[in-house]
Amino acid sequence: MTQRVAIIGAGPCGLSQLRAFQQAEEKGEAIPELTCFEKQSGWGGLWNYDWHTGTDPYGEPVHGGMYRYLWSNGPKECLEFADYTFDDHFKKPIGSFPPREVLYDYITGRAKHGDLRRYVQFDTPVKFVEYVDSTGKFEVRVKNLVEDRERTEVFDYVIVCTGHFSVPHVPDFEGIDRFPGRVMHAHDFREAREFTGRHLLVIGGSYSAEDIALQSLKYGAASVTISYRTQAMGFDWPDGIIERPLLTKLEDKTAHFKDGSTKDVDTIILCTGYLHHFPFLEDRLRLKTHNRMYPPGLYKGIFWEDNPKLMYLGMQDQFYTFSMFDIQAWYARDVVLGRIAMPSKEEMAQDIAKWVAREETLASPFEQIDFQTDYMKELHQQVDYPPFDIDMAADHFKTWEHDKEHSITGYRDQAFKSPCTGTQAPVPHTPWIEAMDDSMAAYLRTEGG
Amino acid sequence: MTQRVAIIGAGPCGLSQLRAFQQAEEKGEAIPELTCFEKQSGWGGLWNYDWHTGTDPYGEPVHGGMYRYLWSNGPKECLEFADYTFDDHFKKPIGSFPPREVLYDYITGRAKHGDLRRYVQFDTPVKFVEYVDSTGKFEVRVKNLVEDRERTEVFDYVIVCTGHFSVPHVPDFEGIDRFPGRVMHAHDFREAREFTGRHLLVIGGSYSAEDIALQSLKYGAASVTISYRTQAMGFDWPDGIIERPLLTKLEDKTAHFKDGSTKDVDTIILCTGYLHHFPFLEDRLRLKTHNRMYPPGLYKGIFWEDNPKLMYLGMQDQFYTFSMFDIQAWYARDVVLGRIAMPSKEEMAQDIAKWVAREETLASPFEQIDFQTDYMKELHQQVDYPPFDIDMAADHFKTWEHDKEHSITGYRDQAFKSPCTGTQAPVPHTPWIEAMDDSMAAYLRTEGG
Repeated sequence: MTQRVAIIGAGPCGLSQLRAFQQAEEKGEAIPELTCFEKQSGWGGLWNYDWHTGTDPYGEPVHGGMYRYLWSNGPKECLEFADYTFDDHFKKPIGSFPPREVLYDYITGRAKHGDLRRYVQFDTPVKFVEYVDSTGKFEVRVKNLVEDRERTEVFDYVIVCTGHFSVPHVPDFEGIDRFPGRVMHAHDFREAREFTGRHLLVIGGSYSAEDIALQSLKYGAASVTISYRTQAMGFDWPDGIIERPLLTKLEDKTAHFKDGSTKDVDTIILCTGYLHHFPFLEDRLRLKTHNRMYPPGLYKGIFWEDNPKLMYLGMQDQFYTFSMFDIQAWYARDVVLGRIAMPSKEEMAQDIAKWVAREETLASPFEQIDFQTDYMKELHQQVDYPPFDIDMAADHFKTWEHDKEHSITGYRDQAFKSPCTGTQAPVPHTPWIEAMDDSMAAYLRTEGG
Repeated sequence: MTQRVAIIGAGPCGLSQLRAFQQAEEKGEAIPELTCFEKQSGWGGLWNYDWHTGTDPYGEPVHGGMYRYLWSNGPKECLEFADYTFDDHFKKPIGSFPPREVLYDYITGRAKHGDLRRYVQFDTPVKFVEYVDSTGKFEVRVKNLVEDRERTEVFDYVIVCTGHFSVPHVPDFEGIDRFPGRVMHAHDFREAREFTGRHLLVIGGSYSAEDIALQSLKYGAASVTISYRTQAMGFDWPDGIIERPLLTKLEDKTAHFKDGSTKDVDTIILCTGYLHHFPFLEDRLRLKTHNRMYPPGLYKGIFWEDNPKLMYLGMQDQFYTFSMFDIQAWYARDVVLGRIAMPSKEEMAQDIAKWVAREETLASPFEQIDFQTDYMKELHQQVDYPPFDIDMAADHFKTWEHDKEHSITGYRDQAFKSPCTGTQAPVPHTPWIEAMDDSMAAYLRTEGG
């Protein structure tokens, strides 16, 4: 009987997984029956911009924290699909740090090219997944939002492609419940111009804090104070951005920091990260981890150790994104197709332990980059994902780290070479700090000339 | 064997239900085993103010839309508990339109008095309820948020007390996705001072729109434009508030209305109502209705017609609130205790049809008040809930409607007489429009002299 595979989510991971199977089918392989459940009305996951916050028109939690005027914060060359390059899609070289719409067009371009839409059920969130020991299959309860009806289907495999940047981690602070302005998590950030003329307090020390602080200043915020828990980002911030240690309390509009300094602010933006949150999985299937380079419990970073018919894509803290999802998807596909044999429980446990032990020694971003590069290579060599120069991509990440140190407002004006095609990206026609229009049309119009 | 009753939610409805059983026990009656599952860390439902929006620290959707500086918008005399009056709780007469903290203190005061906390499991949302035909019982899956673990328990009865003001109804408007300011639903409104000096567009024609518009102006908004779909509220608004017909589109900051007028605004607040949303109930148990005076499918407004062992409290559009929940809770209790016999399917259907037919004739707020008063009386006469002068309460509502017509900023300065005790409320020491401190201490300190 044909096997059935449920893919949960039609964002980058889900689309990578569908593409992996579709590529095998193109090559003449018999593939299982695929069903991809997507809770949104469109695909692309986080890259599918949605103005809603909180809940959507069906009362479902809004998935995405995507905001307007977001530009890639890493070189696009490091996330390029080796089987569908930027050259394939755009037919000309484009810059290395494109705005959201460009990347959305690229991701969904490959999906359209492969007619992957036929596998996707939109407006259909997965509500619960249970593994039935007696049948060795998964029961997946989904809701058709348009019809307002639930149903349960049975699958041989379940692949979780829901991402882990959808449900905020929200810390508490003394006095925050009486703060006389907006208090929000980065997940609800949509429109920087809301904060023109305002004094912002951004809490956090990672990518969201960095990008929201810079973008808000770019669009006219009066000042941005970034409060970190453990370590300042330490970039050479432009005038208007300062870093302070941890917020200790709020008194009316006044923020007090651990170093005794204070600042009066109008708005608080919690860039405090996200939870790995899978409320639709029964407990024994549910990954519980913070954001880290190698979450334990996942063999090869993919297969749920206790039940490898359940897979997770993209659950790592990521340097590589789309390209890593691709390689994971190809690997997962080959296990489902029986091309790759799963080892014994003991071997799985040992392999996980080996990676986790190395992960725990990582002392710098460069070591993290090397770690994830090695992980990618190990998986890549076992699958027929097209070759690309991953060492070049790794070098790009290191150059990019240096570029950010050199100029946090200018690093997006650099240009990189494709590890897939060797194409050299053009320098952008407008420096990022001056580029206020983030549309694809504006970005591509005069690009490269 | 002892029967088990699950009560979902420890807000006003859930606490009414617990109190109903506890009162029977005080009178020497044997009561079933009660378990009340509450997803928040505290009780009081919407009245339990929470600064979070979106999701809570556990990643659960935030329940409440309560905001700071909310004062009762109806006379407290119309929602008084007949078995625990305001005099019982506060030991002195208090004003008719108290701020949130006062009502919270009152609701939870009765609960503490009856030691109802012993029945409540906090931080424990109900995830799914299924009725098992073969056993005639409900399987209720709940999550212990603190332990991050789910479990399933079996119950004979389930009483849904989750309210219907938690999940926003969110309409769409042309251009809203590109509006350069905050777009939010009333559910996320917390702090009016965020909008000091701002021009607000409030969309809606009911209580939320009215109250958020007034409150925002009171705390310093530059202007409030209220956009209605069908009918203007038509109050004699203070300077700074205007009403306009339906929003047709947004162009950048400019709102266009159906009458051709325009207004530049900074923030959009959707006061567009809520969904009756019960994602934790299997389809055949799930009430599907818009907000109305008599949702079909509920016998006596309580019992799920297809399976009366499932009950819903407070699912009506409400004039009476706490007092109606009490009477429903007493009635539900007496059915569980076998004191009231349930009629045949046909009689249930006929009774529902009778009420719904009358509901559909209602042409004015006064007729709606009379309708809900009659509903209350019918249930009241069958249970031992203490008597009170419900006609006086109905008259209060009509007076209150007149008071609002007379002065939308001044109606909260009126004072009413208790239908339970006959106590005359004092006139507030400070007119509502000037009362900026909404704390219980400020409200009670000089109250009545």
